[in-house]
Amino acid sequence: MAATLEVSTILLQLLVLFAGAKLFGTLATFARIPSVVGEIVAGVVIGNTLLRESLQFDASSDLLHVIAELGVVFLIFTVGLETPFEEMKRVGLPSVLVAILGVVVPFLAGYLLFAWTGRPLIESLFLGAALVATSVGITARVLADLGVLGRREARIILGAAVIDDVLGLTILSVVQALGSTGTVSFGAVALLVVESLAFVGVLMYFGGRVLRRVVNPPASRGVRFGAWVASREVLFPFAILLCLALSALSTVLGLAAIIGAFLAGMAFAATDERHALVVKFEALVAFFVPFFFAFIGMQIDLTVAFAAIGLALLVTAIAIATKLVGCAAGAWPFTGSRSAVAIGVGMVPRGEVGIIVALVGLSLHAIPESLYSIVVTMSLLTTIVTPPALVWAFKRLPSEPRAQSGS
Amino acid sequence: MAATLEVSTILLQLLVLFAGAKLFGTLATFARIPSVVGEIVAGVVIGNTLLRESLQFDASSDLLHVIAELGVVFLIFTVGLETPFEEMKRVGLPSVLVAILGVVVPFLAGYLLFAWTGRPLIESLFLGAALVATSVGITARVLADLGVLGRREARIILGAAVIDDVLGLTILSVVQALGSTGTVSFGAVALLVVESLAFVGVLMYFGGRVLRRVVNPPASRGVRFGAWVASREVLFPFAILLCLALSALSTVLGLAAIIGAFLAGMAFAATDERHALVVKFEALVAFFVPFFFAFIGMQIDLTVAFAAIGLALLVTAIAIATKLVGCAAGAWPFTGSRSAVAIGVGMVPRGEVGIIVALVGLSLHAIPESLYSIVVTMSLLTTIVTPPALVWAFKRLPSEPRAQSGS
Repeated sequence: MAATLEVSTILLQLLVLFAGAKLFGTLATFARIPSVVGEIVAGVVIGNTLLRESLQFDASSDLLHVIAELGVVFLIFTVGLETPFEEMKRVGLPSVLVAILGVVVPFLAGYLLFAWTGRPLIESLFLGAALVATSVGITARVLADLGVLGRREARIILGAAVIDDVLGLTILSVVQALGSTGTVSFGAVALLVVESLAFVGVLMYFGGRVLRRVVNPPASRGVRFGAWVASREVLFPFAILLCLALSALSTVLGLAAIIGAFLAGMAFAATDERHALVVKFEALVAFFVPFFFAFIGMQIDLTVAFAAIGLALLVTAIAIATKLVGCAAGAWPFTGSRSAVAIGVGMVPRGEVGIIVALVGLSLHAIPESLYSIVVTMSLLTTIVTPPALVWAFKRLPSEPRAQSGS
Repeated sequence: MAATLEVSTILLQLLVLFAGAKLFGTLATFARIPSVVGEIVAGVVIGNTLLRESLQFDASSDLLHVIAELGVVFLIFTVGLETPFEEMKRVGLPSVLVAILGVVVPFLAGYLLFAWTGRPLIESLFLGAALVATSVGITARVLADLGVLGRREARIILGAAVIDDVLGLTILSVVQALGSTGTVSFGAVALLVVESLAFVGVLMYFGGRVLRRVVNPPASRGVRFGAWVASREVLFPFAILLCLALSALSTVLGLAAIIGAFLAGMAFAATDERHALVVKFEALVAFFVPFFFAFIGMQIDLTVAFAAIGLALLVTAIAIATKLVGCAAGAWPFTGSRSAVAIGVGMVPRGEVGIIVALVGLSLHAIPESLYSIVVTMSLLTTIVTPPALVWAFKRLPSEPRAQSGS
């Protein structure tokens, strides 16, 4: 009987999360706010009212976590599908510069804020690391809703987010080593950097070419196999498989799952079947993604958030300002000011990545509970303020001559 | 770090299950065996080899259970989409007769087998109850793959499966009351029967009509609201919502989740948007359903299954023979012999429903562990033998003049 009861409770939980996200999302649309803000608010409401107790919600539940994670994985795969490598190559240099400045400026600011106020070195380093990593899920969703995924600014954001994650992983591994053993093995860190750069580089350069050769073979060899792979019954499961495989591999390397998902989507973008796949993946996105944003909202414990609200707001302001300035400065020489601001805004959300850094610090006893909840509040506030700002920043851009709508 | 590690492990688990199901399913297709058999075998392999340990699989995991459950829920919703109530009404009488005889004959056989061999009364009653309930998931999948969901035999099976579940719930509640208190409150049982019949009856008769009035309103009133609901962005989430809501309500009443999912799908079958929804739900089915069948396979513990293999095979043979004979006898007067056999075969699988009955018995200490594993073996064997038999039984049917392909 235990099994039946549990499934019944979990079905109810999924129902309430999905219904809440859709209800608040729809209300937000009517109020001309991006619907994703409504979905996050739904999570805040569910996580901070009697609903939480009565439905036995557990914010650390594996099940909700994984369903949310699948949501952002499928979302970013779909974004990758609309981002061929040929287009990404053109924005390579600005992406690298945006990523580097967008990492260095927030890290230094976070470090210096705590170093100057006399906190321990390791706490300062963890705060710096938590301010680094951009979580591109919400930006991707807003850009997709606006239909601007094909714009140059969107591509620079996506490219920068991938490099940003590699840099963030590097910093986290250094800080983590300092927090646990007090020393850093530069060989180990170098290996990590080489591994993750090789993963990203090989998939970017060869993923699409190899996949295109399999699915749409040029000569007579492999045509039958290609037609079989491209057939309706095989293609979609094959794409799901590759998406799951690269996401899992990504997490095994220490990168975010969405990096692997993005690279998998980019590889399929080189095939003739990308439009058929977009239609299929949109159905998965429609089911899974509301759970992702509602789950983000559920992480907000309002009582904890209010306890250290002063310092949390200061850290949030620094997180927003430094990312915006750093990324915009990196983009400016290539894009002009309005586009640079749009790119900076798109890189602001820290989402779950900042929270993971804080969790590592907490598990090593390198940071106190209060710093953890400050980082959580910062991560969520940067995520919530982004959508309206991003809509504003993209609406004021001049229309792009070779713009192609994302959907 | 705990959180990251877990997501990474779970992503790997999902990857292995999905990849295994697809690999064995494809191999099965090449060997001209229904692919669903391959998917179940993949689960058996994963659950009984080193993969289980090394990936930390837990067959009682909430996560896998719910993803599997969502698989069968979306599968049966899609089946409901292709089964308008108008068509079901025509097969009402045969469905009822198939369900009743298909419940009475196996129950008596299970009861008498144990009663004659001198087992306790309550054990005999539990075995009878475990032999009763058909799990229509695998049958629906095979019929959909064959493209015969529109045939009269398929509709009789679906109608009978719904009634069968109500009857099975009634018997389980009686046996459960006897097992826990030794007496039965006929008032409580009557209430349960009335509740579940009202749920099924009201949704069948009014679900489609109400939904059609909302989505495709006839007059000028509500046209704008209807167009909004029928729009691309709203319709699919709305359908997911109703599917989850009725599935959850179904489990709250004690019925299987798929009963609610089927009724939700049937309601949408009355709208003009059913074809658009089939395309969307097919994507969810493609992702979720392999987990359902692989999960069924993972439940098979080969060492336990072999321990009581003699009695388990006898019980399985009785389960198959009595369901086949009972259901075929109910259908025969309406359909002739070949169709009656096809219907009987389609009702054979017990799947997870038999296992739930055994779990209730186990939790009440009404049945011993050995009987539990016998029932699990029976449930799974009836599920595995059905697909090839069903393909054979449907292939030998004469083509139907007004047959309409399901997909």
